[in-house]
Order: sequence, then C-alpha cells, then structure tokens
Amino acid sequence: MPGKTKYVYEFNEGSADMKYVLGGKGANLAEMTRIGLPVPPGFTITTGACNEYYQTGHFPDGLLDEVNEHLNTLQETMGKKLGDPDDPLLVSVRSGAPFSMPGMMDTVLNLGMNDDAVRGLMKQTGNERFAYDSYRRFVQMFGKVVLRIEGELFEEAINELKAKVGVKYDTDLSADDLKELVETFKGIVKAHAGMDFPTDPKQQLRLSIEAVFKSWGNKRAVDYRKLYKIPDDLGTAVSVQTMVFGNKGNTSATGVAFSRDAATGENIQYGDYLVNAQGEDVVAGIRVTQSLTNMKNEMPELAEQLFGILITLEKHYKDMCDTEFTIEQGKLWMLQTRIGKRTAAAALKIAADMVTEGLITKNEAVQRIDPEQLDQLLHPQFDPKAKVAVLTKGLNASPGAAVGKVVFDAETAEEMAEKGEKVILTRWETTPDDLHGMVAAQGILTSHGGKTSHAAVVARGMGKPCVCGADAMLVDAKNKVFSVDGTQVREGEIISIDGTTGRVVIGEVALVPPTPTKEFDLILGWADQIRRLGVRTNADTPEDAEKARRFGAEGIGLCRTEHMFLGDRLPIVQQMILAKSKEEEDDALQKLLRVQRDDFLGIFKAMDGLPVTIRLLDPPLHEFLPNPTDLKVEITRMEMSGAPAAEIAPKQELLDSVEKMAEMNPMLGLRGCRLGIMHPELYKMQVRAIMQAACQFKKEGGNPKVEIMIPLVAIVNELNTLRAESESVVAEVIAATGVDVDYKIGTMIEIPRAAITADEIATVADFFSFGTNDLTQMAFGFSRDDIEAKFLPRYLERKILPRNPFETIDEGVAKLVAMGCENGRKTNPDLKLGVCGEHGGDPDSVKKFHEIGLTYVSCSPYRVPLARLAAAQAVLGADGSTA
Amino acid sequence: MPGKTKYVYEFNEGSADMKYVLGGKGANLAEMTRIGLPVPPGFTITTGACNEYYQTGHFPDGLLDEVNEHLNTLQETMGKKLGDPDDPLLVSVRSGAPFSMPGMMDTVLNLGMNDDAVRGLMKQTGNERFAYDSYRRFVQMFGKVVLRIEGELFEEAINELKAKVGVKYDTDLSADDLKELVETFKGIVKAHAGMDFPTDPKQQLRLSIEAVFKSWGNKRAVDYRKLYKIPDDLGTAVSVQTMVFGNKGNTSATGVAFSRDAATGENIQYGDYLVNAQGEDVVAGIRVTQSLTNMKNEMPELAEQLFGILITLEKHYKDMCDTEFTIEQGKLWMLQTRIGKRTAAAALKIAADMVTEGLITKNEAVQRIDPEQLDQLLHPQFDPKAKVAVLTKGLNASPGAAVGKVVFDAETAEEMAEKGEKVILTRWETTPDDLHGMVAAQGILTSHGGKTSHAAVVARGMGKPCVCGADAMLVDAKNKVFSVDGTQVREGEIISIDGTTGRVVIGEVALVPPTPTKEFDLILGWADQIRRLGVRTNADTPEDAEKARRFGAEGIGLCRTEHMFLGDRLPIVQQMILAKSKEEEDDALQKLLRVQRDDFLGIFKAMDGLPVTIRLLDPPLHEFLPNPTDLKVEITRMEMSGAPAAEIAPKQELLDSVEKMAEMNPMLGLRGCRLGIMHPELYKMQVRAIMQAACQFKKEGGNPKVEIMIPLVAIVNELNTLRAESESVVAEVIAATGVDVDYKIGTMIEIPRAAITADEIATVADFFSFGTNDLTQMAFGFSRDDIEAKFLPRYLERKILPRNPFETIDEGVAKLVAMGCENGRKTNPDLKLGVCGEHGGDPDSVKKFHEIGLTYVSCSPYRVPLARLAAAQAVLGADGSTA
Repeated sequence: MPGKTKYVYEFNEGSADMKYVLGGKGANLAEMTRIGLPVPPGFTITTGACNEYYQTGHFPDGLLDEVNEHLNTLQETMGKKLGDPDDPLLVSVRSGAPFSMPGMMDTVLNLGMNDDAVRGLMKQTGNERFAYDSYRRFVQMFGKVVLRIEGELFEEAINELKAKVGVKYDTDLSADDLKELVETFKGIVKAHAGMDFPTDPKQQLRLSIEAVFKSWGNKRAVDYRKLYKIPDDLGTAVSVQTMVFGNKGNTSATGVAFSRDAATGENIQYGDYLVNAQGEDVVAGIRVTQSLTNMKNEMPELAEQLFGILITLEKHYKDMCDTEFTIEQGKLWMLQTRIGKRTAAAALKIAADMVTEGLITKNEAVQRIDPEQLDQLLHPQFDPKAKVAVLTKGLNASPGAAVGKVVFDAETAEEMAEKGEKVILTRWETTPDDLHGMVAAQGILTSHGGKTSHAAVVARGMGKPCVCGADAMLVDAKNKVFSVDGTQVREGEIISIDGTTGRVVIGEVALVPPTPTKEFDLILGWADQIRRLGVRTNADTPEDAEKARRFGAEGIGLCRTEHMFLGDRLPIVQQMILAKSKEEEDDALQKLLRVQRDDFLGIFKAMDGLPVTIRLLDPPLHEFLPNPTDLKVEITRMEMSGAPAAEIAPKQELLDSVEKMAEMNPMLGLRGCRLGIMHPELYKMQVRAIMQAACQFKKEGGNPKVEIMIPLVAIVNELNTLRAESESVVAEVIAATGVDVDYKIGTMIEIPRAAITADEIATVADFFSFGTNDLTQMAFGFSRDDIEAKFLPRYLERKILPRNPFETIDEGVAKLVAMGCENGRKTNPDLKLGVCGEHGGDPDSVKKFHEIGLTYVSCSPYRVPLARLAAAQAVLGADGSTA
Repeated sequence: MPGKTKYVYEFNEGSADMKYVLGGKGANLAEMTRIGLPVPPGFTITTGACNEYYQTGHFPDGLLDEVNEHLNTLQETMGKKLGDPDDPLLVSVRSGAPFSMPGMMDTVLNLGMNDDAVRGLMKQTGNERFAYDSYRRFVQMFGKVVLRIEGELFEEAINELKAKVGVKYDTDLSADDLKELVETFKGIVKAHAGMDFPTDPKQQLRLSIEAVFKSWGNKRAVDYRKLYKIPDDLGTAVSVQTMVFGNKGNTSATGVAFSRDAATGENIQYGDYLVNAQGEDVVAGIRVTQSLTNMKNEMPELAEQLFGILITLEKHYKDMCDTEFTIEQGKLWMLQTRIGKRTAAAALKIAADMVTEGLITKNEAVQRIDPEQLDQLLHPQFDPKAKVAVLTKGLNASPGAAVGKVVFDAETAEEMAEKGEKVILTRWETTPDDLHGMVAAQGILTSHGGKTSHAAVVARGMGKPCVCGADAMLVDAKNKVFSVDGTQVREGEIISIDGTTGRVVIGEVALVPPTPTKEFDLILGWADQIRRLGVRTNADTPEDAEKARRFGAEGIGLCRTEHMFLGDRLPIVQQMILAKSKEEEDDALQKLLRVQRDDFLGIFKAMDGLPVTIRLLDPPLHEFLPNPTDLKVEITRMEMSGAPAAEIAPKQELLDSVEKMAEMNPMLGLRGCRLGIMHPELYKMQVRAIMQAACQFKKEGGNPKVEIMIPLVAIVNELNTLRAESESVVAEVIAATGVDVDYKIGTMIEIPRAAITADEIATVADFFSFGTNDLTQMAFGFSRDDIEAKFLPRYLERKILPRNPFETIDEGVAKLVAMGCENGRKTNPDLKLGVCGEHGGDPDSVKKFHEIGLTYVSCSPYRVPLARLAAAQAVLGADGSTA
C-alpha cells in the first residue's frame, strides 16, 4: 500500500542506520540479524508510532493490524503460538530510543503467559518450577510496569510466602509455592488495578506497547533527557522479540560481553555471566557473576562462538561493542549490541588503537572523542572506590575534586594557605575582592550563583574545583559556620568537594590524580592537523599561561588586567581613584606602572613567541571601593555609639565618594573603554607598562607579540580616540627604549552596536575579539549575575530557551557575531577575528565559531584541549570525513 | 584656468542658492545684486578658502592674488582706490557662515583708513569730524578684532579724553579731539599688539580676512554651533564690500526692516532706523531709534523705495525677510537680507497667510515650520516682560513654566496640593516612588539627572515643566532646604521654574498662557493630509489621553501600567509581592484587579474608537519595596538603641525578602515579560482587568480597541507562552461577559536579540512597538540612569557621539529597528509597526522612522503636534515637494 506509513519492521527489514526509526536497540537487533548473527526473531514498532501516540493520545490507525500481521509471521517463523497450551510463544517487549537511556524506560518479559501457556511451557521443558516461575515473574512485571501497581506489594507477598514455607531464597520456592504465588499475584492485580489480570496475550501485548510508549514521558526519562540534552520529540521504538531463556538449567546462561575494556580501553574482550539465570539477575547483582574467562573453561565452544561474534561486531561497527547474550540449553542468542560507553582514557586508547589496527582513520578517531569527556583527564577526582556520604549537592561549576579546611573569608584562606594548609573557600558567593582567597584555596564552594557566577567563572579560569549554588547550605560567614539541614560545619573542619558532580562531603575523600595518557597527546596532535580554528587561552598570570601552553594554547586571547589591581595593590588603586590632586593620582599611577610592568613581563616570557592579547582595565572603578551599604551601617553604628565627629568625618567623606560613583546598573555604566575616555591616564599607564615590559623582554632576546585590546567599544570614535592616545604612548616607549616591538591594537566586540557597526570600527582595529559573555548579556538584556538564580532555571525547564546561553552560544547572539565578522571584514579584510568569552571552551559553540569563520577561540587553560578537539571535529563530518 | 579652485566671487557672480559657498550673507548680497537691488559692490571669499585655512594653517595658494584681482575690479567699478588721499575706497570685511550665527564672528568696518585716506575722505565729504571719527573707529575696531587688543583700553582712552575736554557724549568730541584719539589709539596698538598700526590697506585687508577666518573657531562660535547643532566643518565666507555711510549728515541714515511682523506674523512691514548713524549704533541701542512709519513722513520717497524693495524681496524669497539698509546722502543701499527669525506663532501665521496669498504651497508651509518651535505654543511661559533674577540654571528638561511653593517630598506635595496649594517638587532626583508627588506638583526641580532622567521623562510625559540636573543646588531633603551658593530656600517658599530654558527663580514670576492660534490647527491639518506615519500618544491616565486626543493623537501607543501599582495601591502591591500564601497573594491580586479595571475603563472611554496599546507590568518588583540600605540602617539603629527583638524581627524579615529580590543590574534582570513567566497570575490579572473593562465599555455602547503589549521579549517562546496564557484569560472574560471585543496581542521590540530574531517573534505577534529607550540602552550597553551624568557630556564634547542617542535615534540603533521591521514583515506581512520610545517625539527621529517604514510613532501628549508636523516633513523634500 504505497503512501501508507509503515509502523512495524521485521528485524530482517531494518539496519543499524535506522536508529531514529527503530531506536538504538531495534536498529542493532536488525543489523545483527542482517549480518547473520543468532538473534531471536522479532519485530520493532517505530518511534514514529510513539510520536503519533503522544500527538493524538491514542495508537495510530492501523498500528495494531500491522502488529498482528507481524505477530502472525513471527508465530509462523517460530512454529509457536501465543498462549498455546502445547507450545506457547513468549515474547519480550522492550523500549529503545534513538539514544541510549539505560534503565529509564520500561520492559516487559515473558509476555504471553497465562493459564494455558504455563501448561504448554511445562510440556516443552518438562520443568514445572521453571514454568510457574516464568508465570509469576510475568504477572509481577506486568502488574508493576503496565498496570502501575506498587512493586512492594509483590515483594511482600513473596516474603510472606517464604516465611510461611520457611525458606530464605526465592530459588528455594517450589513449583507449588510458585503456583500459589501466581494466584496471590493475580489477587493483587485485581485488588489494585481494578481489573482482572488479562489472560488474552494480544491484550497483554497491546497494554505493554502502550506502557512502553508512556514510559517515554515518565519523569525519570524526562529528567534524563534534560540532563543529556536529548530532544523530547524523538520518541521510543518498541521491540517485540521471541523470549529465550537463560534459566532452563545448567546448559543455559545469560550475560554481558564487551569487545574491549571500557575502563582502560585495553583490547581485551571481557564480560560477566550467570548460569541458569535471566538477564535481570545479572544486572540486579543478587548472585555473584562469573567472568567470561571462566566461560572458556565451562562452555568452551559457546565461549569461542561468543568471542568470535564480538570480533565480528567490532569489525562491523568499527567500535567497541557492549552486548547482551543468552544461552538457552546450549544455544547462544544475541539479545542486544550497542556502542559501549567508556571512560575518557579508554575512549582515547580505543580510538588510537583502532587507528593502528587499520580499523578507523585518524579523522574518525578524532571525531569519536567527546570533548567534554576530556575534562575528566585534567583534574583530580574523588577516588571512584571511595564510599562517600554526600552532605549536599550544588552545581558542578568547575571540574575536579578538592579537599581542605573550611574557611569563610579570603583573608583567612590566604593566611592558612601561607602556613601550608589546604583550604576550601566557602562563601555565600564570591566577588572580585575574594580573588586572593580563591588563589590560595584548593577549591571554592558557594551557596549562591549559577554556573557562570563569579566563583564559577574564575574557578574554571584557574582550573580550580568549584561547587556553586549549593542552596541547601546556610552560610554564616560572620560566625564562621555553615549548616545543611541542621548539620553544622565550622571553620577548620575538613570537607571534600567534587566540582565534576557538585558533591559536598564532610571529611576527607581520597583523590586520584589526573592521568593524561600518551593517546591524549596523540589524538590531540591529529586534531591540530585537522582544525583550521586557532586555540588560545584566557590567562592572567604567568602560571596560567605556562599551564595553557602545555595544554597546547597558541597564545593568549584574553589577559584580564583587573586582577593586577587587587590584593596588595588595592590600596594604591583606591588612592588613585580617590585622589584629591593630580600629584596624588600620578603617584598612584607610577606605583601601578611599576608593578604591572613586572606582571606583563612574566606573561610575555611564558608566551615567548606567541601572541598575547592584553585587555585594558574593564570593570567599573567602584568595584575597587568599599560597599556603600556597609559603610552607611558602620557610620550609623559610630553615630549611635557616640564616636567623635572627627572619626566619623573621614568615613562620611569616603561614603560620599563611593555614593557619587555608585551606579544603578554597573554592567551598563562607566566601565571598559569609557574609563579610558574619562581617565586617559589610566589606560596610558597600562599601555606604557605593557610596552615597557615588551621592549625589555625583546632586549633580553625574547620575542613578545603584543596585542593591546580595548574593551567595550560601541562607537568607532571610542576606539579611534583611544588608539591614537595609545599609539602616542607606544611611540614614546619605543623611542625611549630604542627597541622596536611589533604590536597590534584591537577591540572587543561585546556590545550589540559594535557588531552592527563593525564596518566602521574595523577601519581602526587590527583585530576583533568577540566578548560573547557580555554580548550575550546585552543581546538578551540579561544580567548574568541576576538571572541565573532568578529565572534561567525556569526558562530552561519550560523550554523557553533550549540551553543556557552563557554555556552554549545562542543562535541570535551567533547572528550578531556573524554580522560583526562580515561587517568587519568588509572594510578590513586582514582583520583577525577571535572569541574570548567562555563559549570559546564549549564544544558546540566552537563548532559554531568555526562555521562563522573566526580566526581563533580563546578559553581557560583547562578547556584548551577540548577546544582543540572540538575545532577539529567542526572540520569533520559526522562520519569523520572532511567537508 | 580650468581645474583651479575659485576662491572669490563678485557679488554679481553668485546667487542665493550658493550659501554653502558664499555664506548666507554673501549669497544674499549676490542674490540682491542679481535681481537689481541697490547693493554696494563687493566680492565674497568662499567658505572653502576658510576650510583650507583650517586644514593647512595658512591661506590657500593663490587666494591673495585672486583677492587682489577682485579688489582691482572693485576699485575700477567704484572709481576709487584704497588709501587714495583724494578719493579713497573704504570697505567692510564681514563674516558669513552658511547658517546664521548672529554676532558670533567678527566684522571690520571702514577698512582702508590711514593718514592718506583720512585726508581723501575729508576732501570728498568736507567733513573733518566725520573723517576722523571714521578713522578712530577703524583703528579701534581693527585693534580689537584683528589684533585682539582688550577693547576696554580703547574705551578708557575715550573716557579719559571726554573727561579731559569735559564732554559727556562721544558725539560731542570735536574733529581735533578725534584726531588726538586716533594717535592715542595707534599708541595703544603699538604698546599692546607689538607692532605699529598697519597703514597699508592691503595688509589691513589680509589681516582682517585672517581674523574673520579665525573667528569661526573662537569659543563663542563653537559653543553656538554646538547649541544649534551646526557642523564645525562648514567654515565661514568673508564678504568685502564697499562702505556706505549712514552718518554723513541728516540725509543719511541706517536701519533694519522686516517684511512682516516677526513676533505676531502680521503682514505689516516694520523696522527701525536712525538718521545720521552707522549700523552698529542701531544695534547698540545707544540712541533711541525711530520706526519706519516715521520714515514715511521724514523721507517719503526713500521709504517708498524701501517698502517696495521689501515687497520685491518677499516675493522673490517667498518668505519673510529681515534686512539692513543704509541711506547715504539720500541714496538707499541694501546691506543685507536674510530669512527672518520669528516666534512660533508668527511662523504659523506667516506660512498660512502666504498660502492664502498664493506665494507658497501648503506643502511648503508645512515644511517651513520648525517642529521644536511648536512646543512654545503648548506651555505657559515666563512673561517675556517680567524681569527675572535667575538663582541658578539647570537642564531644560520639560518645557513650560511653573510657580509654586518648594516641597521636598512627594507626600508633602500631595498634602499641600490637596489643600489647593501650588507646589514645586524639589528633589535630589526622583524615583517611581515620587510619582504621586509629581502628579500633585506644578513642576519638578532636581539637582541631579540628565534630560532623560526619571524626573525629565515622567514630567515630559505629563507635560509638566521640569528643570533637572541643576547641579549648583544642594538639596537637603531631611532638613527641607536647598541652597545655591549660600542662598537658602526652605519648604514653603515660592519659586518659579522655566522648563523651556532651565531657569530657576526665587519668588513668583508672572506667567503667560499658551496661545495656540487658528493657524496652528490649519497647518497641522495640512500636515495630517501629507504624512503617512500615524501619530499616537504615550498616556497612562484618562486625563493625558484626552489631552493628547485634543492634540491630534490617533490612539495610545503606550499605556504604562506601573503607575497603577503606586500611590495608595502600593501596600496592596507589597502584600502581593511578599505574600506567604497563595490566598494572601490571590487576595491582593483581586484587589488590584478591581482598581485596574476602573483605570482601563477610563482610558478606553477617553480613546473611544481609537486603538489603545496597554503594556503589561514592566519594572522589577523590588522597585515597589523599600530600599534595603535604608532598612539596614534602620535595623542597625534599632539594635543600637536596644529596641526589643520582637520589633526588629519583622524589619529583618522584610530586609531578607528585599535582599533576596535585589539585583546587581535591575535593567537586565527580572522585569518585563520575565515577570509574566515567573508570576503568571500577575499578567493574567492585568489581562483580565483590561478585557473586563473593554467588555463593559462595549456593553455601554463604546468602541474599545484593545492592544495588549507584552514587554521585553527577547525570545519567541516568551511571547508564545504569554500569548497563550493571555488568550485563555481573554476567552474566559468574553465567555463570562457575553461581549466580544476585538483585541490584538503584540510585543515591544526593545532587546537587541528581539530585533535580530524578529522573524521568529513576528509569527506570534499582531504588532511590534519598538521601545527605543531600552533598545538604545542595550544596543549601546548604556544605562541611562548612570551615563547621562557620568560620561555622556564628555562624549558629546569630544564628538565621540554626534548627539545624545536618547534624544535623537542613533544610526546603529536605527539599523536594529530597520532589521526588526524587515525581519518581522518577512514572516508576518500584516504586522503593525510602531515606536513608543521617547524618540517618537523627536523630529529627526520621526523622519528616520518614516524612512524605515513604520506604521506609527507614539509620544507624550505635548509632543503629538510636533510628531504630526515632523511626519509630514519627512514625506516632503527640503523644498516642500513630495518625494
């Protein structure tokens, strides 16, 4: 019937590339059937049928007819019939989505059992106990999965029976006991489902298919999809397959087998099996499984056949396979195969080995590694073997684990770190004032703020573990204690945090060190040969620069200078800001010039020969001053306690200054290049420090490549003005030192208007670096500080936004980036185009930036390997081909 | 010589349309020469020569040669020579820019005077006193204007001489006295200019031309250009013209004449003249001038000739002309003509009359009125005859004048207004909390904030006079006093403010009422026939709506609902926000529903039959709560003074709530449609109130046209979600009332991403209204609250921005608007497109919006006539033709 939708495929009609139609499981069963492996016959109902079910609320027209046709074919093929009292066909009904969602959806086994079939099964096997055990298992599973009856009711009934007959294990129950149990179970069904247990196998099948469809929408499955970013509209397929039994005695067995080691990647077939058991027993861990090595001794021929199949599968799929099998009375059946999950180290080793073995190309090897997984290899982790009692969970803001004493302020963190103690800085949330404490700490823990809060961003930049937004924590910094549900943790107590998962644990958890393997370098080397996008790093210190260089960074794309205004320099900075005379200001600027010159020198040395993009000061100056509310409260206290006016006056004066500088919306206020326009001496000092450092380094034989970046430009005249002022300082320094250093002057494109008028701005810029953090803020009108806690979670939940736009570049913002590139290149074809927002370390965003045609991305040191890999994958098609 | 730049034009070579080359004065002298009026011969040096002078720092090559050639021609024409001891030629050297800059640049008269010429002049006139008076005037003027000698030195010398010879007036000085004075003046020149007085007329001329060029760049001229938005690169022309003398006895005279009355527009020629005087005497006001009516009696033939010339000029220029003339010994010379400046009322009357007279078309009449000038006609003003002693000046934030008692807080304003007293609300700056006080006040005065500060915007919206940013004022609201330079003004004292000029005056200044004339309606009626852009108003109350409708508004483009949450409703709003239970929240929402329904009903009535666009709540909810710093200080006070814990606890609880809601950047936080997503009941209540009011009004026989506007949309799904929720409420109300009301649901486009993704958003919007205030903020990354005081002035001064982008739409932002229109119409061709930012009332912006192709603009009631006119002018070419 041409034009009619086909809802059901025999296994021998499908193939592995039909996973969107047949689900992963169905497609692979079809594939195995197609290449002649022993698969119990069956058929698969498509994901399309499931989707129609969700759209209309009922089965698609014709679906049940089609199922019946295929059921008839199956009965003919097997020479058995459902519910046949002589030789009954039993089937399994399994879910199978296009992407693996292990254990999230429902499965029904032994379908077809009723009072007739159980007799047929007895006849066929001569095993009454087996027959009734299968029957009671089916009633139990059907009751629980399809009829949504509380599973405990069945468990209790089993326990009562065992108590009554005085046995300990299920396996000790006799055939008669089980017979009685079947009746008890039927009673439970009748009492709790409001219907008799359905004895008609076709009704059983219809209800089971619907139950599997429904399980696609259960909370567990929905949460899982959200977590793994699997679209909701894919639907699940349903595979109906002839049952085979691994529990028909000692020539029967069931197990799982991997074609290589999923933990290490070693080329060793391995797995576990149980004799005389059904699949669920292996997973449930009730009985101790045996390794496949043992099978070689116990069932040598079958083992040989299985190992052969694993080799066949791996050659066929060109990847490590994870299979399920059952042996029924000496015959091996393959019940499932899929591409096996693996650790990051295993992924790298398997890919590298398969290239050596000639199984895949280098491109395929590169394409196959999940960039996000690489992160595992770069940070210490909780020892997987450690038993941990999780106190609370926050957001996994910066990967890696850390152990240390709890401290509640940056000063204490620094003091204790100086004494050689490891500390975890624990705050309500962090501010730039806490930076020295963050530097001193092993890890950062906050009760507020999202994955792009200050703590998270800075921690990721430093490659330090961070758990943030752990909102069950009440942090009382004043009294140096935090509590979770009444459990108090005081300063000095040891905690462990795991930034990879968000876990917070009281006490010390053993950590395992990062283990980048030789395959890590090998495959990233291949990636470097493939990618066209450069990869730089965001680094503010020589230490970070060195680290990033070791990870393969090709320069610095963003060196923030605000960190050079903090710590012991803060008093000088405050002197500069609050200066009452030109002399006082100049004095502060001179002091800053000296220290910043040394900062830059260290960075140029670390990046010798590679470009270093230095951003002139960006944050509003009031960020360097005390908080006005705190000051007001302090003054009120002093007044109330009768402090002398002379003591209050300077505080009041400071408050006046601070209030004068306060802004309603600092994000949109006097910052970035606007500072440079209003305080020309500040930017000139920075340019002087940069160029003096560069000239000195060149004199010493180094090769500094200076890129001066002016932030927050919205108007061509801002850059024009500041470029001219910078160039005159550069000329002065070059004249004074007698050393000529190459330099570029460019700007960040982080204001929508800058992207829109990039053609104008490009006429006076040597490079653009897209600051996609701020660009996202302003394109959306979102303040990252505010919205992540306030409404972004709801937006994601209600699918108003598909993803957090601060993690993965938004399509609308990407259009602005593309517009900026296109406009900029129109008037300045030599323009270098980079990205230095956090998106530079996000694989999906990297792909987008590759497509837009940027020159490079820049990201925090620990994200550099990810970006290298993602940039290569952006070049490759899904199959590893170069586009 | 082809290809050579021509720097000098004889008067008979030019015409009126060459004002960019010859300046206004030079072009009009040429035009008058061309049409045969009696103009003393001369020539004009081009603005191009001036611009080259500024670029290179010296005269263009060949300029002096060309000047000499034309000087020779002039000498031949006149039969006189510069410096001739028998019959000397004397010339004037005058500046003349393309746009009138009265008195801003320099002029030199009587050039050519020296010891020879003075004798020749004596010979020609037989008047020694006149000759030496001309000589001393020249030395004095040349010394002051060209040689930059302090003018007082000359004045002092005159006074000394008068004292010495014992006379009171200059005119009493004898020829010998003046002869002595010439020598004294020469001595002053030598002593202060470091050079002898130059006797060579060509050197005099060269220095004078250079002085006029230089005067283009003097501070006065630069400030004037900035004020009137005249570009700096136009340059000034220099006209060199034969001197004629009105001071050669009683058959000589000099004066000014207008072809119509510049104050009222009446078609009556008028002017003033002085017998036996030079032009500067008329302007200086030293002698009492006579009216031209008098001239008819005294010099009937000359008067007839002059009136005839005025008629000729008016017919020729088709506009009211403002002329200068001199009668030299019975011969009339025209020295200048230009289009006369006039009051708004006169402009309207002249234009309307000229249409009646068949002199110009209606289109030309419409094109000729300056929209900004209309404002004069709509607000009371200080009586121009009143003598005012200005205490201080602020920004002219909202036009019109007001008189009232000073009050320092909104509550007092309201209380006093209720007692029938007129008050001026005087604040450091205003916040939405002050709104009821602003409503109650006659005018608003602030010491902080720019022309788009809260006070300014709201006042303009209300059509109330406002002076803001008067930064010389120290406002001490606590002690209810403000001071300027030590002068204190306390609560209850009367002040007058003039929002048209920014003046603040102690005491009561007499006001004159607005006087829109019949020509006002006539010409705006013509404008309505021409324009294609609709004009709506921004109005939040029935009163404003009615006012705007009288001014010609075709509906409401923006009805803000936040004002409906203030005043006596604030406690209910706070109850809603802080509600601890659903019941408590519902109760507050019910109360708000009832009062808002009445608000909407009033507005629908006022706009019966016209569309009313109502914006759902936009500001962040914390704006309705107390300030956390104030609360913190209060709690500290209570703690310090030992208040019982039970009293402190509720304050602390409130503080906790407020702090939880506080945002770093409220502009980019939880506001607009984000509120609607997070608090669905709030928006549903508003939609219910709107629709209940509309249904009720329709039941009563009215014709409500409802447009529900959802603000701050950045993502199509925001609008999608809220549209669906709104529509279900609409359906409910329609079902419940049984009345069907037409409605539209649309959104504001005020977020860059919305403009960029307008194609998506338009699929679920019936209309877009561009919120260009916020769009400007986010496109630039400017917080209006912060930048206007902090750095915008510097940006304008340094020409980083050509204009305040919050006053006149910026080119980059306009691109976003155009992008939004184009993208939106792509997917929804029926989309209505409006603008409701303040730019809707700015003539230049209105022109831009017309070009972009919007459907309508919306502006505050008092700007509606301006917008109507500007929209018509946008259709017309500069000459009044329809494009």
